[in-house]
Amino acid sequence: MESQTVKDGPVVPDDWKTLVPCMPTGPLDVYRKKASFNWKHLKLLMEGEDTIRFKRDLWSMMEKELVFQHLRHDTTMADEREATQRRLQHLMNLNILPWEKLMENMTQMQWMINGLGMFNWSLSSKYILNYQMFGGSIMSLGTERHLKFRDQASSFEISGSFSMTELSHGSNTKAVRTTATYDPKTQEFVINTPDIEATKCWVGLLGQTATHTILYAQLYTPDGVRHGLHPFIVPIRDPKTLHSYPGLVVGDMGKKMGQNGLDNGFVSFKNYRIPRVNMLNRGSDVTPEGNYVTPYKDPTKRFSTALGALSAGRVGIASMAVTSLKKALSIAVRYSAVRKQFGPTAEKEISVIEYQLQQWRLLPYVAAMYAQHVFTFHMIESYNEFVINTFLGDKSERQVMMSREIHALTSANKPLTTWTARNAIQECREACGGHGFLWASGIGEIRNDHDPTCTFEGDNNVLLIQTSNFLISLAQAKKTDGEAMWSTMETVDFMDDMENILPRRFNCTTEREVLAPEVPLAVYKWLVVYLLQESIAKVKTEIQRGKDLFTARNDSQVYYCRSLAIAYIEHTTLEAFYKYCHSNDMAPSLKAVLLKMCSLYGLWSLEKHAATLYQGGFFTGSQPSNLIRNAILTLCSQLKDEAVALVDVFAPPDFVLNSTIGASDGQVYKRLYSSFLEAPGSLERPTWWKEFVDKTTSSKL
Amino acid sequence: MESQTVKDGPVVPDDWKTLVPCMPTGPLDVYRKKASFNWKHLKLLMEGEDTIRFKRDLWSMMEKELVFQHLRHDTTMADEREATQRRLQHLMNLNILPWEKLMENMTQMQWMINGLGMFNWSLSSKYILNYQMFGGSIMSLGTERHLKFRDQASSFEISGSFSMTELSHGSNTKAVRTTATYDPKTQEFVINTPDIEATKCWVGLLGQTATHTILYAQLYTPDGVRHGLHPFIVPIRDPKTLHSYPGLVVGDMGKKMGQNGLDNGFVSFKNYRIPRVNMLNRGSDVTPEGNYVTPYKDPTKRFSTALGALSAGRVGIASMAVTSLKKALSIAVRYSAVRKQFGPTAEKEISVIEYQLQQWRLLPYVAAMYAQHVFTFHMIESYNEFVINTFLGDKSERQVMMSREIHALTSANKPLTTWTARNAIQECREACGGHGFLWASGIGEIRNDHDPTCTFEGDNNVLLIQTSNFLISLAQAKKTDGEAMWSTMETVDFMDDMENILPRRFNCTTEREVLAPEVPLAVYKWLVVYLLQESIAKVKTEIQRGKDLFTARNDSQVYYCRSLAIAYIEHTTLEAFYKYCHSNDMAPSLKAVLLKMCSLYGLWSLEKHAATLYQGGFFTGSQPSNLIRNAILTLCSQLKDEAVALVDVFAPPDFVLNSTIGASDGQVYKRLYSSFLEAPGSLERPTWWKEFVDKTTSSKL
Repeated sequence: MESQTVKDGPVVPDDWKTLVPCMPTGPLDVYRKKASFNWKHLKLLMEGEDTIRFKRDLWSMMEKELVFQHLRHDTTMADEREATQRRLQHLMNLNILPWEKLMENMTQMQWMINGLGMFNWSLSSKYILNYQMFGGSIMSLGTERHLKFRDQASSFEISGSFSMTELSHGSNTKAVRTTATYDPKTQEFVINTPDIEATKCWVGLLGQTATHTILYAQLYTPDGVRHGLHPFIVPIRDPKTLHSYPGLVVGDMGKKMGQNGLDNGFVSFKNYRIPRVNMLNRGSDVTPEGNYVTPYKDPTKRFSTALGALSAGRVGIASMAVTSLKKALSIAVRYSAVRKQFGPTAEKEISVIEYQLQQWRLLPYVAAMYAQHVFTFHMIESYNEFVINTFLGDKSERQVMMSREIHALTSANKPLTTWTARNAIQECREACGGHGFLWASGIGEIRNDHDPTCTFEGDNNVLLIQTSNFLISLAQAKKTDGEAMWSTMETVDFMDDMENILPRRFNCTTEREVLAPEVPLAVYKWLVVYLLQESIAKVKTEIQRGKDLFTARNDSQVYYCRSLAIAYIEHTTLEAFYKYCHSNDMAPSLKAVLLKMCSLYGLWSLEKHAATLYQGGFFTGSQPSNLIRNAILTLCSQLKDEAVALVDVFAPPDFVLNSTIGASDGQVYKRLYSSFLEAPGSLERPTWWKEFVDKTTSSKL
Repeated sequence: MESQTVKDGPVVPDDWKTLVPCMPTGPLDVYRKKASFNWKHLKLLMEGEDTIRFKRDLWSMMEKELVFQHLRHDTTMADEREATQRRLQHLMNLNILPWEKLMENMTQMQWMINGLGMFNWSLSSKYILNYQMFGGSIMSLGTERHLKFRDQASSFEISGSFSMTELSHGSNTKAVRTTATYDPKTQEFVINTPDIEATKCWVGLLGQTATHTILYAQLYTPDGVRHGLHPFIVPIRDPKTLHSYPGLVVGDMGKKMGQNGLDNGFVSFKNYRIPRVNMLNRGSDVTPEGNYVTPYKDPTKRFSTALGALSAGRVGIASMAVTSLKKALSIAVRYSAVRKQFGPTAEKEISVIEYQLQQWRLLPYVAAMYAQHVFTFHMIESYNEFVINTFLGDKSERQVMMSREIHALTSANKPLTTWTARNAIQECREACGGHGFLWASGIGEIRNDHDPTCTFEGDNNVLLIQTSNFLISLAQAKKTDGEAMWSTMETVDFMDDMENILPRRFNCTTEREVLAPEVPLAVYKWLVVYLLQESIAKVKTEIQRGKDLFTARNDSQVYYCRSLAIAYIEHTTLEAFYKYCHSNDMAPSLKAVLLKMCSLYGLWSLEKHAATLYQGGFFTGSQPSNLIRNAILTLCSQLKDEAVALVDVFAPPDFVLNSTIGASDGQVYKRLYSSFLEAPGSLERPTWWKEFVDKTTSSKL
């Protein structure tokens, strides 16, 4: 394989062999040799030299530093918190990504987030929250006078956080109830928490260390008028002592199901005063006399702009989900290639990846990993372009549409990627049998740390409503005003042809036809417009039954609007992946395997909608379902021999992957046995052995 | 409601009001008052007085004892291990369920397992492993001379465990490689572990405390003949010191994704000698001279009998899964009734359970909880009956068939119930939003502790093969020998009518018709026989393509045999629930709500097979899918007002449920806030604050 690097492959960097080292030999050699492509070439294609180099440097640094060595498994939450804070401090001191450097290429932030996250998500979260969420929000919401806070957070003189959610309000942010009342006598805002339910919570870094927070509160001017939610910079703790200031109660929310290295905190205020100039006043301001000034006439628009800082979150969460997916699949696919169980004869056992069931459980997720990697990074590029254009003052129709489209896409891509990873991680866990349940397998930490992504920055099901609302409003504008359906990224344009698409029917008659990725793409186009039509009709029916719009929309989610949003984002992902496979300079060996994954991802995702395809008459008779199911299994078996090389492309170094059963050398049993012996106290009697054996003491226990 | 106890309800015990106390008043009153039935009457019906009393006594005892108080959240694995061991010791000393008492009613073991498990699964597991798995295996595998080990384990003078799985062999038990070679000179067996991969592992209790283990090893007689796997009682640690004996290496496997109070261990042997009489010799024996004696001519049959002790496991795991389901749903349903978010106007927010999406996410699982509770306890009764008949020497055809049927049913019910609970727990976690992710919600522990059930005693996907093989073999016997399809529990009898069922088609035309539970039952009958026919054809096709039987069967699992096994167990569960609803003395108010759940469980499970129903021609056009989906949503909305009362039926007392957001008083926000403040150190600076604020020390970190 290595020889291809020179002969047929792409132009590689001079230090290629150290930049992407070869895999160690061992039990995985068999499958690595079976691959039809050079995994290093695919890696270069998928990630690009700059990303590979950035992560390599980051991970090499970590591997050398004591502070980044993995904790023993039997740690407390307090240990995890402390270790994460020390790691964060070390990172901030290195100043790897100063704001000036980041501005040259904003995608570097994703490399950093995912590079750190592959190692540990708590560290990554703390880094993002202090640096991007706090610093970035100051840049988008504040003005010149606030930049010092950003710079102090970057140099870690202070530590920033972001306070929006309250104890009884998460999704419905407009209903948060903390107040900021302006007092012109002292030129201060007075912050108050009306009751327990309005306690700010889930604030990352606030549990133990944040010295400042960006607080969203209902603004009241001295005339008693409420102006809605506004952001303020609020000092929380003295950076010299970490003591909290009088007038507030701040603390830690305690243990969570994952990411316990991150200290989520709560805070409540009682007549707590902050200077007038701490209001983040890019959108609107209060004059020293107490007058409210804003360029926005429509308060809804001001609110949307203020919340703009949050939408970056959904873009990032999707890439985090894909990162966790890569880690989990690296472990499960490698272990499935090593592990042998049963066989055609009692003597000869075969690798479990040879079984159809195991292939079907894992390979569609491998395909999903590639498709979602491609689309999610495409989204990041588009989002960054959008942010730069906004910064440059672009107010074109194209830019306005892009704002809506990005909102719709990220509101569906975050659910799709986080659910895909959630399901994949669990499937990987079970596909690894009992050893997958061991902490040393590494899957438990991936699962736990991934878990919050399904609800943070909005519950997935609730987010999907944003997407279907966008599509329905475009379709209605077409109907009522004759506006063609289009969007900046062209993800909705095909829907303009709805009338011509709807009468189409599935017309493949052989498995060979169905294996072409154009088939699922075409089927998805029908599915999306069908669900769009049905969703609109459903809302209309509910309204005709006398329901108000709020209720009618809510009662049209299941099987209609929700399915529409999912089908739309699956189609968008598939199409982006398909276009990527047809990039100009794609080597044929890479294109071949990528197209197979494109077909598999498309068919496998589509198969879940088969009932709807029958229901809408696109499918009839047994053939469509038969052909698609058979094609899925065929593709799984074709990709089985590629699987190890396909995960090698995205697998981090063993130090980062940190899995006994997923290491690149495939030495599963030796590593498992070592992990047992190395666990502190593994071979010792428990400290309480005496009480256990002495029956006379048992009553004291 | 309370008044019904006297007026219209069943005959209740004298101490009814203290046996099943009323729920505290609070935010949940609204929904409790909306319920159409008396939850206490339904509780009495579902659980029976004896179970209610048993668990009440167990939990009251626990609530009073210091040793059972919940640990703080920030504990180490070592703390969990120690606490669990002390709790186990306390329990064993109480001798709640002596063998004599258990023999009067074996179902008591399930009450104990699930009563303990609702509190903590590690404790329950340790109890089962020492008491039932070790003690019970001695009774079924050993003879008179081994009973002392059972009695010593019951009185906790020794502590027992069960060693089957090896590092590289779990599912394929026949391939385990530990050896026991008989030495007639000393009348001992010499135990050896040939290499690292044959290390026994996953042995519960062996990590820290087990003094003995039942070891499965390949038996060799002095003539060099290998006789296959046999069980032996092997001393591991000195009960007086807990020091391990020379000749073996025993230790702890380390942290797991859950159940960390249970110490899973590993052990390997080198020329380790045990007395001849330690062979568990009910099935076969070795004479002092070294001759192998067995009543079985067919070694396969001996192996099946020896493994019989394991099948109780699958029966129990299903009831454990249903127990976890009850706990998770109690939390999520109550919190969804309390939590308000958004509403038709900005001022008026509504409970999230009012939303169609939330209903659809949770209510089908409430229905599943009832259906699976009924069927799983029905299985337990049947299994106990089977065991007693075996013990009494029943060798009738009915008993032989029951053995096969129970194997098939438990091999599918364990996957169905563990996957249902797995999915439900995750849905509950997400349906509770961010607070569901807090450890204090209680859902994390339920998820972690439930997780191993999906792979222990066999990976779910692999187990399902057992079930489809059973059905296929019956169908083939009918075809080749003209034998009618029947089984002792009558779960396959309808398949004998395959020819008449297959031509049937879905013929409902109104939602009203579909709401009747007879509809999903009838549809399932068609689905099962269709999948049976297709699975047989698929295996045949693969053989005709030149594959051997092993490969042909493996290549017929996905979409065929696997779906068959799932449809069969879903139908069986549904039918058992349906029959239960039609019990003679059922109060009309209870019957009404149970039948709604029966319909919902049936339709919701069936909807997942809709593509296959279309594929096979049972469904045509848009109507069937439309009717079923609409009926599901109608049932969800009808059951929405019953939901709180439905979970009250199975919810354990608050002390056992141990959830801030799921407590019976619905005081979610007060409890959350208290949990923040009570967490040790919550309001304090971290101990390492100085290093954090002092920049000059950062390089040392």
